[in-house]
Amino acid sequence: MNEVELRGTSIIAGKYTEGGGKSFTAFNPVKKRTLAPSFYEASVRELSWAVAAAAEAFPVYSRVTGKDRAAFLECIAGQLEKNKADLVSRCMEETGLTEPRLEGELGRTTGQIRMFAELIREGSWADARIDTNVADIRSMLIPLGPVAVFGASNFPLAFSTAGGDTASALAAGCPVVFKGHPDHPGTCEIAGEAISRALKITGMPEGVFSLLQGKEHQLGIDLVGRREIKAVGFTGSLKAGRALFNAAAGREEPIPVYAEMGSLNPVILLPRALSKRGDKIAEGLAGSLSLGTGQFCTNPGLVILVGKDSLDGFRNLLSEKLSSLSPGIMLSRKAISSYIKGVEAVSSLEGVEVEWAGNGPGSGEEMTGYGCVITATPEAFLCSPPLQKEIFGPATVLVQVGDEKELISALMKTGGQLTVTFHHEGDDLKQFSGLVEAAEQIAGRIIFNGFPTGVEVCHAMHHGGPYPASTDLRSTSVGTRGISRFARPVCFQNAPEAVLPKELWDDNPLGIRRLVNGVWVEL
Amino acid sequence: MNEVELRGTSIIAGKYTEGGGKSFTAFNPVKKRTLAPSFYEASVRELSWAVAAAAEAFPVYSRVTGKDRAAFLECIAGQLEKNKADLVSRCMEETGLTEPRLEGELGRTTGQIRMFAELIREGSWADARIDTNVADIRSMLIPLGPVAVFGASNFPLAFSTAGGDTASALAAGCPVVFKGHPDHPGTCEIAGEAISRALKITGMPEGVFSLLQGKEHQLGIDLVGRREIKAVGFTGSLKAGRALFNAAAGREEPIPVYAEMGSLNPVILLPRALSKRGDKIAEGLAGSLSLGTGQFCTNPGLVILVGKDSLDGFRNLLSEKLSSLSPGIMLSRKAISSYIKGVEAVSSLEGVEVEWAGNGPGSGEEMTGYGCVITATPEAFLCSPPLQKEIFGPATVLVQVGDEKELISALMKTGGQLTVTFHHEGDDLKQFSGLVEAAEQIAGRIIFNGFPTGVEVCHAMHHGGPYPASTDLRSTSVGTRGISRFARPVCFQNAPEAVLPKELWDDNPLGIRRLVNGVWVEL
Repeated sequence: MNEVELRGTSIIAGKYTEGGGKSFTAFNPVKKRTLAPSFYEASVRELSWAVAAAAEAFPVYSRVTGKDRAAFLECIAGQLEKNKADLVSRCMEETGLTEPRLEGELGRTTGQIRMFAELIREGSWADARIDTNVADIRSMLIPLGPVAVFGASNFPLAFSTAGGDTASALAAGCPVVFKGHPDHPGTCEIAGEAISRALKITGMPEGVFSLLQGKEHQLGIDLVGRREIKAVGFTGSLKAGRALFNAAAGREEPIPVYAEMGSLNPVILLPRALSKRGDKIAEGLAGSLSLGTGQFCTNPGLVILVGKDSLDGFRNLLSEKLSSLSPGIMLSRKAISSYIKGVEAVSSLEGVEVEWAGNGPGSGEEMTGYGCVITATPEAFLCSPPLQKEIFGPATVLVQVGDEKELISALMKTGGQLTVTFHHEGDDLKQFSGLVEAAEQIAGRIIFNGFPTGVEVCHAMHHGGPYPASTDLRSTSVGTRGISRFARPVCFQNAPEAVLPKELWDDNPLGIRRLVNGVWVEL
Repeated sequence: MNEVELRGTSIIAGKYTEGGGKSFTAFNPVKKRTLAPSFYEASVRELSWAVAAAAEAFPVYSRVTGKDRAAFLECIAGQLEKNKADLVSRCMEETGLTEPRLEGELGRTTGQIRMFAELIREGSWADARIDTNVADIRSMLIPLGPVAVFGASNFPLAFSTAGGDTASALAAGCPVVFKGHPDHPGTCEIAGEAISRALKITGMPEGVFSLLQGKEHQLGIDLVGRREIKAVGFTGSLKAGRALFNAAAGREEPIPVYAEMGSLNPVILLPRALSKRGDKIAEGLAGSLSLGTGQFCTNPGLVILVGKDSLDGFRNLLSEKLSSLSPGIMLSRKAISSYIKGVEAVSSLEGVEVEWAGNGPGSGEEMTGYGCVITATPEAFLCSPPLQKEIFGPATVLVQVGDEKELISALMKTGGQLTVTFHHEGDDLKQFSGLVEAAEQIAGRIIFNGFPTGVEVCHAMHHGGPYPASTDLRSTSVGTRGISRFARPVCFQNAPEAVLPKELWDDNPLGIRRLVNGVWVEL
């Protein structure tokens, strides 16, 4: 969208910086051309300014009432909607994602911001507790401090500048320093400006939000290393997430890192389900696999069949369904090249067959992510670590195992997962009775007769999982539980009411749910 | 207590091992003699056995109902009480702590075990959530897996073998591999045997608990490095806690480390409080400082006075009160030597005066921990990192500052704290209105007109704090919130009821509090 006037500099505490120095550009993967304008890599000075502004804003912002923070969040949602046309069109340019997809994603983004607004307006999330039987002990959750947030390439709205990590950190009372994603810097700027306008409209301290533009790995590491930063939210690759985790763990004061790094998301097809509705499953799987051209962290990268005879038939079905779908454009040159490299790396392994859907790569459509079905023998799967790792794109590995024991072995080889999915009918789950327990040990979410893509934003959702799905298996990056990532308890003993937060006053003026002498009390 | 027959070997999955290899002995700090028998350092083979047994027990134990786990915990409490005489007498020998103190500590230990039993019998701690408006999404907390626990020298019962970390991990459904404390191995053995008996009586899988005896640093590092271990509980020094944290963060799969490492626990005396009841405060402070011969993680190691003229008077009062108390025996040779070294390290600093209570060290009573008042100028305090760190023992640093700004500067220099205490009267807190907010930024608990020692075991308690008070400021090692350290959410989507945990069944057969479509519902 050439009409949007973009400045190309970072936005710190409500102000565009002057920029200068190194720059980079975004790239349109559909039209295969670079996009104006140039974006300036945030300097060390700008980084210092952003974290200092966040640290200065923190004591004030952390004391803003839940109601006022809720109004701020709702104002952000409104400002994003005001920029809907610009956001969606620039984002289409930068990512190649379609208009309906991005309109839907913007709805998800504003929806989750409003969900957190509702949560903090109500206020009970603070887990207020009062014990008066011995001493007078009162405690509640308070915000951690300034948070560094890193967005994902694959959800340029819902997991980026104004995405779930930013929304939950702001909801908890933490200022956010957002490191812009170099694949969609213009989208970051438009969203960052919307947040900055909301800051001004609702009179929040300006240091509550900054956007640092940048392409260099080191900027992120430096940001995480700053003393003022007290937690990190991240969605992206294992390599980048682990680097941030290591930087945070190596600080003098280590800080929590909530890195959601994707996974294989095994889908297990049990015999009765496969025989009863193999065709429907293949169709659903092809759709789930192709969603966002396979660039979802919940993309089904492994399908395990149980039985003896069904493999060829199901593979043919799946390939057919995949080929019938139009292949999509991948997000970036890096994405397509690492996708193809990922498939190539396993294609030469013994016991592995690779079948591309449609034309496959090499047919001239350099940015197209063709679907790919990789069939592996159980032996090949169990012995080949590359097969047990996520290939980011619309490829899935198909393995057939003989019995439950083999199935559990294969599952355990995959390690921590965001999701495990079962397709079952009739007595399948009775016959394979150890499967769900095994899945619980490795996964954050277990899906039945569905597909892993599509993560509902709700109270009960958990989007996370044991490592390497995330660096903190106690945390979720989707749903209301996500706010607790950015808070910690503080306890007051024998405090005069005048110095207590209202959440802990005797007469409960905020009307929140509290644990009083061991009993949960609603006002 | 020579009559207790101790075996001196590790206890793994309910069985005493054969021992052999390196050994060590405990030491009676009062009688200044080594104690029989020898204890064998756990071998690598024993370590492997213990973690394998824990991993094997986990899937079974994690599915034991809350009611049955509660019965197991209560059985542990009963078995500890059955061994009360042996536990207390051997512990007196190994630590020099008095009989009333240890009887009280045993009561605290069994009390917190029963508190967790009550919590899991009721069951609502699992944070069950059900959303059915779009998909059917249900989630709850499940245990992390086998946990490594490290006990503290200063609380050989309540923060050791059967202490709060073990109790909360077992309550959450996690097997525990406990690394015995080399200063009280006999106490560990008696408590470990009590837990092992409870395992058998209640029919729990035997691998749910193991005690590894050992004195070597490497044993702990190796334990934390084991793939089967999924979290770590620790109470002790910054140095040891940070080493375990680093080992855990460096694993292929990083795991949470809950290390509570003590702190300075600043006590701030505001002018009206000081002038109205300086004598009482000095008396209370001397008592708090001397409790357990100063070997409490909440020991008040820093006292800040605000004003101009009160320093000498208060110092004299405090010294007088301290001198009037009988000095205690320190826990170990290492404790007394590092205490004296800690005081010596600051005594040569410019602007620092050291005054020992009573005879002071060097008077022949080599194991006696004499009280010590260290007076520092504000300049000395602000510029000398050794003054800003905990000296483990009955020493406190006295600093007088001129105004609130200086006070906040001094407070901020101390870094993360378990506690900050204010003594105030009249308008003190109005006049110094920024203090409580400043304290919130650095402390886990803020106490008014009291003393930091004495951590009540209750729902609202928070015993933790920003680094270096702990490695995980979101966590508490005292109170019911502590159970959540050892659990993570798991989510079920569209699951048939037969495979769901009962916590998530439609008709709520366990009668727990649940969040259903955004509303908290009691049965």
